[in-house]
Amino acid sequence: MDELLRALEAADCSAVLSAAQDIHYADLASLYENLEDGKRDLLLKTIGPELATDLIAELPDTLIEDALGHFKPAQLRVLLGNLSDDDRVDVFQVVSEEAQVRFFSLLGPRDKELTRNLLKYEEDTAGGRMTTRIGRITADMTVKQAITVLKRDREDTETLARIFVVDDQGRLAGKIRLRDLAFSTWDTPIHDIMEDAGEFILATADQEEAARTLSKYDLVVLPVVDEFHHLLGVLTYDDALEIVQEESTEDIEKLAAISGEQSEVSYLNTSVGMHYRRRVAWLVGLAFVSIASGYVMYRFSETLEKAFVLSLFLPMVVAAGGNSGGQAATMVIRAMALGEISAGNALRIAWKEVRTGLFLGLSLGIAIAAFIALILPHLQNGTGADFDFFHLAAAVAAAITVQVLSATVLGALLPIGARAINLDPAVVSSPSLASTVDVSGMLIYFTTAGAILNLH
Amino acid sequence: MDELLRALEAADCSAVLSAAQDIHYADLASLYENLEDGKRDLLLKTIGPELATDLIAELPDTLIEDALGHFKPAQLRVLLGNLSDDDRVDVFQVVSEEAQVRFFSLLGPRDKELTRNLLKYEEDTAGGRMTTRIGRITADMTVKQAITVLKRDREDTETLARIFVVDDQGRLAGKIRLRDLAFSTWDTPIHDIMEDAGEFILATADQEEAARTLSKYDLVVLPVVDEFHHLLGVLTYDDALEIVQEESTEDIEKLAAISGEQSEVSYLNTSVGMHYRRRVAWLVGLAFVSIASGYVMYRFSETLEKAFVLSLFLPMVVAAGGNSGGQAATMVIRAMALGEISAGNALRIAWKEVRTGLFLGLSLGIAIAAFIALILPHLQNGTGADFDFFHLAAAVAAAITVQVLSATVLGALLPIGARAINLDPAVVSSPSLASTVDVSGMLIYFTTAGAILNLH
Repeated sequence: MDELLRALEAADCSAVLSAAQDIHYADLASLYENLEDGKRDLLLKTIGPELATDLIAELPDTLIEDALGHFKPAQLRVLLGNLSDDDRVDVFQVVSEEAQVRFFSLLGPRDKELTRNLLKYEEDTAGGRMTTRIGRITADMTVKQAITVLKRDREDTETLARIFVVDDQGRLAGKIRLRDLAFSTWDTPIHDIMEDAGEFILATADQEEAARTLSKYDLVVLPVVDEFHHLLGVLTYDDALEIVQEESTEDIEKLAAISGEQSEVSYLNTSVGMHYRRRVAWLVGLAFVSIASGYVMYRFSETLEKAFVLSLFLPMVVAAGGNSGGQAATMVIRAMALGEISAGNALRIAWKEVRTGLFLGLSLGIAIAAFIALILPHLQNGTGADFDFFHLAAAVAAAITVQVLSATVLGALLPIGARAINLDPAVVSSPSLASTVDVSGMLIYFTTAGAILNLH
Repeated sequence: MDELLRALEAADCSAVLSAAQDIHYADLASLYENLEDGKRDLLLKTIGPELATDLIAELPDTLIEDALGHFKPAQLRVLLGNLSDDDRVDVFQVVSEEAQVRFFSLLGPRDKELTRNLLKYEEDTAGGRMTTRIGRITADMTVKQAITVLKRDREDTETLARIFVVDDQGRLAGKIRLRDLAFSTWDTPIHDIMEDAGEFILATADQEEAARTLSKYDLVVLPVVDEFHHLLGVLTYDDALEIVQEESTEDIEKLAAISGEQSEVSYLNTSVGMHYRRRVAWLVGLAFVSIASGYVMYRFSETLEKAFVLSLFLPMVVAAGGNSGGQAATMVIRAMALGEISAGNALRIAWKEVRTGLFLGLSLGIAIAAFIALILPHLQNGTGADFDFFHLAAAVAAAITVQVLSATVLGALLPIGARAINLDPAVVSSPSLASTVDVSGMLIYFTTAGAILNLH
């Protein structure tokens, strides 16, 4: 890597080429990401379309169009032809429309047809992620015939870990393992060593579901079929790994009120402008929601003036709601992402969270009440109002119990509600939930304290 | 599945057995998780140790010891012997010490030695997750000899996707692909078709690093070596998938202030008591931290009394700090988990976040100032204090800008600091960060407003 950087610095083409050849394309792609424009150009032009193919396939979406712009049409034709069909479709999915048209005209007739077919599937479906380069054999072949077919396609098949067998209509009929081919005599008929195809997935299914299936059943390859059970392609374990990482990052970011697609560009290579854009909308939106809390506080100014000691525990009651609601929401959102629960479980979830929330609220209430009643009197000389510490303890404890219980149940049910109306459950981010329950926290605190301490 | 449930309901052993045989072990394990104790016992006893092996290996950690308790020693001996060595080590890592001793005495001599060796590695290291069942061949064999060796080990090797070649000292020397064995003549020497071993990982390395390496280089299998480069075992793609899912869940839960190890038990099967325990400590702790905010508010009661209109924007300034800090912390924590940044990048990160935070703070300040100066005067009749809406707008805008800027930088740097002192960055959860910056928010708001509006 250092060698390559030095060669780029010195603009020494032959040194760049020889250094680049020794580096894994995944490393080459991260290095590329960190280069300035001029050096990116030098690197791509020096290594040429052959070596650049794998590099381009590894790049974050936002850098792909620019990278391809460094090549002449003839080189682009080679590069696009070299890309595996799923990577090629990814390229078409992320570049501008103008570039789509231009790139498409450079494809060979077979690739045109394939790309057009694959582009039918949304980017985040099994069909959008699958590769169609798979060994295809039929049950009436012998082992020798199968090996001949596979040998011909050898460089063209992304994985031979599982070889799928189709019937004469192209429908998925079974699978064999390469080891069974290797360890069987050459005249064995395929249908003698073929197993049931096992798990498969529809091309229109969500990519998360596909990754979960592959992971649950410990598969290397998951066959992707259309509604008539025709074998279209496969999703491989490395696609699943990527999907799981992308979806987790997306969920984590949504939970922190960061908007927009996770762009795959690394943190340090994301511009300040992009960081700003992904955060500002939620921040401003949530700020205006907080004015509702402020309004409740403003309306209860008289209550607060009568007993300013209440301000000591106001942030606590408010924050406890946001925290407990956020915990419940996170638990439920993650369980949904892992496929453990669905909207149909809403009642069971609510019942679990009612109990959990009640115990949490009571624990907090008791801890705070004990703190107020036992410790505060020794630290201060009275509340400065006409009530004692025991009443204050009771008021704060009651408010925090109600606030935690209601926030917990709300936090658990909102993501389920979001899913039920086809929203991503992770939109119920901790900050947006907190802003919502802050308002109820203010109301609960002032009305409870007002009632128990006779402040109205 | 329904068939099996009906058979269990009817306690019809032969129906249970035949239904269980048709179900994938992953499904059998999730079904088992949802059964009551009596039916679990019936299921395990009916299917016997052979069929139960895969089921046990798929169970969440907390259910394993109980499940094994259903078997007699002779059956346990079979079951423990059938487990793949990495699954067996997992069992030993999660059961009680008493059970460890009992189970260990049931192992054969080879398994005892193997288990003892594997138990040396922590559960969350590459060594703790690897399997040692791999095809091991040396460079001086021919293809035919290699196939004979692998055929003997055929049922014993977890994956033949990549076959590693060792030298006479057992050190990792290279790798071959099964397809190269299958497609080469039988007298080809292995060293003619052997490639560089490529990426490998130390047994003591963190499991997350191992999963990242496997994912980055699109490997099916990653060889695990000791410090002398001896091949100890391999980590497979399905281990990596599990690791990525576990670590993401762990990070997501930590970010929401949920403590304890993610137990692999599904949400609905986790008891209310366990849900309670994983959430209560942080909730109570954070509640007491919030008293600090309350104390600041209490101290500034005079300022607030002089201009109660300030309460309208107090929750907003406070929440904006928590939200912007949480966004920055989440970005940085996720980037660290994906291996994009390390503590060495602290300065670059700080500089990025200072600018991002400044722009975010200014945007919020301007939006709020405009709201106050333009809209509020038309809704109300004056502030009720001796200053105008323009001064109020300036005070709130200044406070929110300072609060957002400082919270953003703090949010980004705290996780890096945590990593630097070897804490998990994800302990800087959004709620704990919010509780911290709530205090500074109160201080900033009251001092800024006090100064600009002359309230002291």
